[in-house]
Amino acid sequence: MAQENRLKLSGDRFAVVYHLSGSEAEASAKAADICLEQTVELPDELVKDRSIREEIVGQVVSLRQLQPDLFEAVITFAAETSGFELTQLLNVIFGNISLQPGIRVERLQLSPSFLEAFRGPRFGREGLRSWLKVPHRPLLCTALKPMGMSASELAELAHRLALGGIDIIKDDHGLANQPFCPFEERVERCAEAVARANRATGLDCIYMPNVTAPVDEVLERALFAKAVGARGLLISPGLTGFDTMRRLADDDRVALPLMSHPAFQGSLVTISHAGISHFALFGQMARLAGADASIFPNYGGRFPFKREDCCSLAQGTGCEMGPIKPIFPTPAGGMSLERVPELGMVYGREVIFLIGAGLIKHSPNLVENCRYFKQLVEQI
Amino acid sequence: MAQENRLKLSGDRFAVVYHLSGSEAEASAKAADICLEQTVELPDELVKDRSIREEIVGQVVSLRQLQPDLFEAVITFAAETSGFELTQLLNVIFGNISLQPGIRVERLQLSPSFLEAFRGPRFGREGLRSWLKVPHRPLLCTALKPMGMSASELAELAHRLALGGIDIIKDDHGLANQPFCPFEERVERCAEAVARANRATGLDCIYMPNVTAPVDEVLERALFAKAVGARGLLISPGLTGFDTMRRLADDDRVALPLMSHPAFQGSLVTISHAGISHFALFGQMARLAGADASIFPNYGGRFPFKREDCCSLAQGTGCEMGPIKPIFPTPAGGMSLERVPELGMVYGREVIFLIGAGLIKHSPNLVENCRYFKQLVEQI
Repeated sequence: MAQENRLKLSGDRFAVVYHLSGSEAEASAKAADICLEQTVELPDELVKDRSIREEIVGQVVSLRQLQPDLFEAVITFAAETSGFELTQLLNVIFGNISLQPGIRVERLQLSPSFLEAFRGPRFGREGLRSWLKVPHRPLLCTALKPMGMSASELAELAHRLALGGIDIIKDDHGLANQPFCPFEERVERCAEAVARANRATGLDCIYMPNVTAPVDEVLERALFAKAVGARGLLISPGLTGFDTMRRLADDDRVALPLMSHPAFQGSLVTISHAGISHFALFGQMARLAGADASIFPNYGGRFPFKREDCCSLAQGTGCEMGPIKPIFPTPAGGMSLERVPELGMVYGREVIFLIGAGLIKHSPNLVENCRYFKQLVEQI
Repeated sequence: MAQENRLKLSGDRFAVVYHLSGSEAEASAKAADICLEQTVELPDELVKDRSIREEIVGQVVSLRQLQPDLFEAVITFAAETSGFELTQLLNVIFGNISLQPGIRVERLQLSPSFLEAFRGPRFGREGLRSWLKVPHRPLLCTALKPMGMSASELAELAHRLALGGIDIIKDDHGLANQPFCPFEERVERCAEAVARANRATGLDCIYMPNVTAPVDEVLERALFAKAVGARGLLISPGLTGFDTMRRLADDDRVALPLMSHPAFQGSLVTISHAGISHFALFGQMARLAGADASIFPNYGGRFPFKREDCCSLAQGTGCEMGPIKPIFPTPAGGMSLERVPELGMVYGREVIFLIGAGLIKHSPNLVENCRYFKQLVEQI
């Protein structure tokens, strides 16, 4: 092979906004450490090559105090360090430093030219609205559960939910391919039940089966689901890896709306000065990885997310990201019908309300509960 | 389709040992919540079906106090809830409750019959030792870095490291497929350089390129690497998802030793009473997902792991797991040659020492530094 002499960079850089805990000296040391740790993984004195030092090592462009022991650092990296691959981009953003305390990824600033390498959500808010033929109001979503029901029982449940006018009926995220409810049987029956209800109502309810699965079966299950009439898919990127969702979103044979579920991602967001912010994880990263809707546990339910976390998350689903479409924040987790008006004030109309148990609990007539849910949402 | 009437379970159950923070009443409530949240995702009063209540909902088999505000709960789940798939198993173990505070996965207790569904590491400790022809002493590992070097420069480095007698030369985990050092060019040159050194030394050094990549390219890169002479692979399951590593380990066309890297997994272990223990994450789960060696940041280096974390982790790499082989703990992250004798006392011989910068820093003669590293290790 001929001798190569590579390292020619475009000059395009992406920025990550980190929150760093500690005194100014500590925060400054952390920022300097991030620049090395996330790129060359060598102590400063061992980075001999001048081009590597100047172009590959991250650069702190600002460090400012937010609170007595909290600083915001903006650090930039050469676009090429990411290899324009989601796995390596996440690695540069938070790979090794996920193992260090007091560092939180707050926000990504990715230039439009950089973002051209990522397709992002196929549908986004607008696309999903036209897919569902619901132009303005918040969207209604619920889940098929509990695990342990047979495929026919779940299909019967799906039928009633669709009759009641729900827009999106998703599998509970724990429905996989268990022997007591195999994937293909479940998906075929539920898709058929929803289609039958749609013929009766004239509505366009969609069924979104869960395709969180062994990595070599995700695509196969997605294509099976599409073939039998599913019109969307649910996936938990914390279980499959973000890139498996990206792969699914990018595949032109699949071409269905994707909803992401936060299972196994909690440790990234539950500590206030570590991990990744709600804005970046469930907003920006979910979008980069191709979700059209991002489920998260709503404040005031059975999970500890605060109202400000949820609002910030919702902003992350819609903030400016060049060619990457905005997606739907999808609050869930212990929500009740009674709270819909309040949540309308908080999230506005660009939202999917996911109510599971709350919909069953409201009254013994499930179809009526769904209609009531829709009435409440139509007033937003 | 005929009416099915499924839910027939074998009675085989797996157990998860959780640490729960709080008073006894709080811990007890958390344990009860885990049983529902990780399976049916419904409040107790909405689980109407008796079989689901008795067989699908998790069961607390013990709750005991460890410290004033810390309890250990052992909770069992029907084997079938996992669908015998790694993604869904991780979901039952820690999916939704990753979003709750004060819950830590401490240990998995998976019955031998359950473990039959998982192949685990292809090589394990014994297999990797015979692959490398090193029957007894600790194994020597180092990394090719920094990012920004060209393929030829990295190959030249690999050549010197192999001449010095290193057993395993891995890519730095940030080397992906960047334009300044494309994957195929790098892997071809480095594998050739290591093979050339082996011909000179008569040793069996192996090169392990990093195949952390978009999910649809991992297998292709692995097969390319094998075709050009790589004899092992590095992957970061935090970036690709655990199941992508499992897929790679299970593939008979690949059939190479795998080393897992902890990038992006830090948030799971860095908080003491949340997330997943070092024992379970870097030991048991890495094994279930097919790693033959599990890299982690050693205590006393530049990461905050404590000595007891590392010892516990090492136990997790070797504890009884039925047919799932023991694997090598691989301490790394700011280690120096000077510490090798001490680390030998801590880890014994069933370990891979991964020293990167410390090997370069020791003296200007890299080949000699490697030989010195080997001498130190031979005294363990």
